Amino acid sequence: MDVNAEDFFFSGLNKPGNTNNRLGSNVTAVNVNKIAGLNTLGISLARIDFAPYGLNPPHTHPRATEVLTVIEGTLLISFVTSNPQNRLIFKVLNAGDVFVFPEGLIHFQFNRGHKNAVAIAGLSSQNPGVITVANAVFGSNLKIDESILAKVFQVDKKVIDYPVRLVA
Amino acid sequence: MDVNAEDFFFSGLNKPGNTNNRLGSNVTAVNVNKIAGLNTLGISLARIDFAPYGLNPPHTHPRATEVLTVIEGTLLISFVTSNPQNRLIFKVLNAGDVFVFPEGLIHFQFNRGHKNAVAIAGLSSQNPGVITVANAVFGSNLKIDESILAKVFQVDKKVIDYPVRLVA
Amino acid sequence: MDVNAEDFFFSGLNKPGNTNNRLGSNVTAVNVNKIAGLNTLGISLARIDFAPYGLNPPHTHPRATEVLTVIEGTLLISFVTSNPQNRLIFKVLNAGDVFVFPEGLIHFQFNRGHKNAVAIAGLSSQNPGVITVANAVFGSNLKIDESILAKVFQVDKKVIDYPVRLVA
Amino acid sequence: MDVNAEDFFFSGLNKPGNTNNRLGSNVTAVNVNKIAGLNTLGISLARIDFAPYGLNPPHTHPRATEVLTVIEGTLLISFVTSNPQNRLIFKVLNAGDVFVFPEGLIHFQFNRGHKNAVAIAGLSSQNPGVITVANAVFGSNLKIDESILAKVFQVDKKVIDYPVRLVA
Amino acid sequence: MDVNAEDFFFSGLNKPGNTNNRLGSNVTAVNVNKIAGLNTLGISLARIDFAPYGLNPPHTHPRATEVLTVIEGTLLISFVTSNPQNRLIFKVLNAGDVFVFPEGLIHFQFNRGHKNAVAIAGLSSQNPGVITVANAVFGSNLKIDESILAKVFQVDKKVIDYPVRLVA
Amino acid sequence: MDVNAEDFFFSGLNKPGNTNNRLGSNVTAVNVNKIAGLNTLGISLARIDFAPYGLNPPHTHPRATEVLTVIEGTLLISFVTSNPQNRLIFKVLNAGDVFVFPEGLIHFQFNRGHKNAVAIAGLSSQNPGVITVANAVFGSNLKIDESILAKVFQVDKKVIDYPVRLVA
Repeated sequence: MDVNAEDFFFSGLNKPGNTNNRLGSNVTAVNVNKIAGLNTLGISLARIDFAPYGLNPPHTHPRATEVLTVIEGTLLISFVTSNPQNRLIFKVLNAGDVFVFPEGLIHFQFNRGHKNAVAIAGLSSQNPGVITVANAVFGSNLKIDESILAKVFQVDKKVIDYPVRLVA
Repeated sequence: MDVNAEDFFFSGLNKPGNTNNRLGSNVTAVNVNKIAGLNTLGISLARIDFAPYGLNPPHTHPRATEVLTVIEGTLLISFVTSNPQNRLIFKVLNAGDVFVFPEGLIHFQFNRGHKNAVAIAGLSSQNPGVITVANAVFGSNLKIDESILAKVFQVDKKVIDYPVRLVA
Repeated sequence: MDVNAEDFFFSGLNKPGNTNNRLGSNVTAVNVNKIAGLNTLGISLARIDFAPYGLNPPHTHPRATEVLTVIEGTLLISFVTSNPQNRLIFKVLNAGDVFVFPEGLIHFQFNRGHKNAVAIAGLSSQNPGVITVANAVFGSNLKIDESILAKVFQVDKKVIDYPVRLVA
Repeated sequence: MDVNAEDFFFSGLNKPGNTNNRLGSNVTAVNVNKIAGLNTLGISLARIDFAPYGLNPPHTHPRATEVLTVIEGTLLISFVTSNPQNRLIFKVLNAGDVFVFPEGLIHFQFNRGHKNAVAIAGLSSQNPGVITVANAVFGSNLKIDESILAKVFQVDKKVIDYPVRLVA
Repeated sequence: MDVNAEDFFFSGLNKPGNTNNRLGSNVTAVNVNKIAGLNTLGISLARIDFAPYGLNPPHTHPRATEVLTVIEGTLLISFVTSNPQNRLIFKVLNAGDVFVFPEGLIHFQFNRGHKNAVAIAGLSSQNPGVITVANAVFGSNLKIDESILAKVFQVDKKVIDYPVRLVA
Repeated sequence: MDVNAEDFFFSGLNKPGNTNNRLGSNVTAVNVNKIAGLNTLGISLARIDFAPYGLNPPHTHPRATEVLTVIEGTLLISFVTSNPQNRLIFKVLNAGDVFVFPEGLIHFQFNRGHKNAVAIAGLSSQNPGVITVANAVFGSNLKIDESILAKVFQVDKKVIDYPVRLVA
């Protein structure tokens, strides 16, 4: 079967994602689910939009390193190193700055400015996967005894109303 | 330089790890830092000890899949699938049961019995890395404004006293 | 040795590259030579600037697939499939369009509009390499008999004045 | 199709394998044939049982490194280095000792004690393969002229009654 | 399904390829399309025949390094290094000489003698792919405006009659 | 440091290896120890010479698949499949025949004719390694109790005089 250009094409990464949600952020992933021609090629792209004070909350990519560049706005970005140090590596990025989030590490991006922000990222897998820590910890579809799970995750679910948009 | 047997050897995996801590668990990792001969070979072992109701808390290995077998005791184990489903896959394991934690996924093991439990695990990297979610989220060595960080992680640090041992 | 944020950081990808050259294009590569922390991580970024009718001429990356997105302007992009078909796969891309250039294939991008164009690309190697076909074929630093080389490359060096900027 | 816990689960590694055979050993492999969820994940486990003076005879894993730990008993273990040295690397292991058998090298484990021995091993492939040297050399299903084969393998099949259990 | 010897077998690499063509060369590739058993094994072979002054013209293998040995005759071989140096690395090889063409680099072999030449090569992929630069640049099946394409490739198609056999 | 042609070059593969030994065979390996430029490139070559009735005895390459082609003569070649089948896959090869020996499997080549034979092989590693089964089993430099070792390998060292050349 012959390939054609459509197998390697995706349209719409210029359109801002809808940030009208509690976190004030939106990720548009362009991976093998969107471009079949990426299969086995070990790379994908993403666009991340941030409303003012919007957050792309702490998450990991289980199968990819991410390299991000800021297109507009100002982002506080961070990753946390592995045990035992768990050092919070962070930096404020402006337009044109580039930052690397090594494979599997927990990282976040936070728009600390009062204007929108936009970033483009490359990821080292055609299917990087995303695990939002809060979703995995607090939002999973429970099927085991909640009292055990509350202990495991050490949280009082009534106290924590997460995720919520970080408005100033 | 000639190799010798000591380059491929480690001793002491039969010794119970010290579980006298708040979580009631202990991991003894036998990776390339312990056995130099493992370098480039893509595998390592670990022993995990649990006091009664001890927890190996939610964590990821950024560079490895883990296959665990229970040597003694009863463990409630679980991993959470990636976004968007975030399904909590879980099972109760007894001695001789084997379970797989795919690369990069958040998982935990909890001794739900009143006796000690022991597990042995193989990991698909000579240097798998460990990221304990709670340490990364709550315990990192802060260097940025705590008010921003509290928003990012959506927690009231006074409320959450984590990690603590899960005594019944 | 502890890592710090500077090991994962590069600044200046917002600055237009200098397209005041015969081809009317400029590539700013952000690879392991610019960010040491990319080592072994299998990914890098690049910004490509185009003057009106500027060309990023036919080239290959010997160790990487490229995924490009157009930030502004209109590009005619293309890759050529392997022997024996040598089909020219091409498409006109506008802002927000994404296209994949599979590893090792000859590809080019041509600004067919009268305004500047800008693209951002992810590449699946920390050190992708670039081979501009014309440089390799016509511009190599000759050390063997030119009459043989002319036969090998089948060109009359007087006739071909390459590369030159493609002004309309 | 959704995954479920059974896709990542195997039961019975606590049960001693039947060592009532000529070699006095038994391997229970937990690989992708037993746990479908291991596919592509690059790891598997095995349990090895030894009767007194039982032998897991010289063999290789064509696609995996093995890391073994002794659960009970005393094993004489060994691997042989590649040409031209062919050095016999060996060691006596007791409970809790760990040893590495690098990918593709010929190795064996011998229970030199008068009690049973048990080991657990991790292997760096979901499908490591096993080649028992004696089976491959002496036990293959012959279809070519035996006189040629005897020369190739340099053995008098009448003399060698292999494999047999190594009783003291 | 059982394997049999035919799955790993190909016949005819002793037969000279037909060099009665404009280039005076012929490549017989023995890859996964010829031997199904090569699948996933990361290697293949090729035989290259040269008439006197025959040329295996500048080409790349997008997924493989090539190691070639001359069986008979005298070859001028060369590869060109990546940007920015684009150095022409070359050497004259006689029978028994071995040379490496690293993955993805443009290389050629030219029979500079008045007798036939033959080479055997190993390639580090079961499906290396071949991109003949001239075919990709001049011979692709055009579907876009030729005036644009002529600019992109900077050639006057009337001038260049390529490929042609390099007769003395 | 600039590369030069010598980094990618080896000379002498046309010279017959010395088969005046007990096995009547000789392997000339051209790997990263001979050509530094092969480093990380995942391929190497070898030439194998056979006296009449010479044998390249049963061996494995722990890190490589081999693809062999017969340059002259007639070889009986074979590999043995993994446990539990241990099927002897074999074939008689003449000049121009090609055969694949998958990674890590025990294989041999036997010159069953009364003339010399020569083969060229590609291997999927710059450092494939070789383990001659007989050397590993019978010829290793013993440092442990011979009575135990004899049991492990199940051989009477007096009976087996291996390796010896296979003269008719």
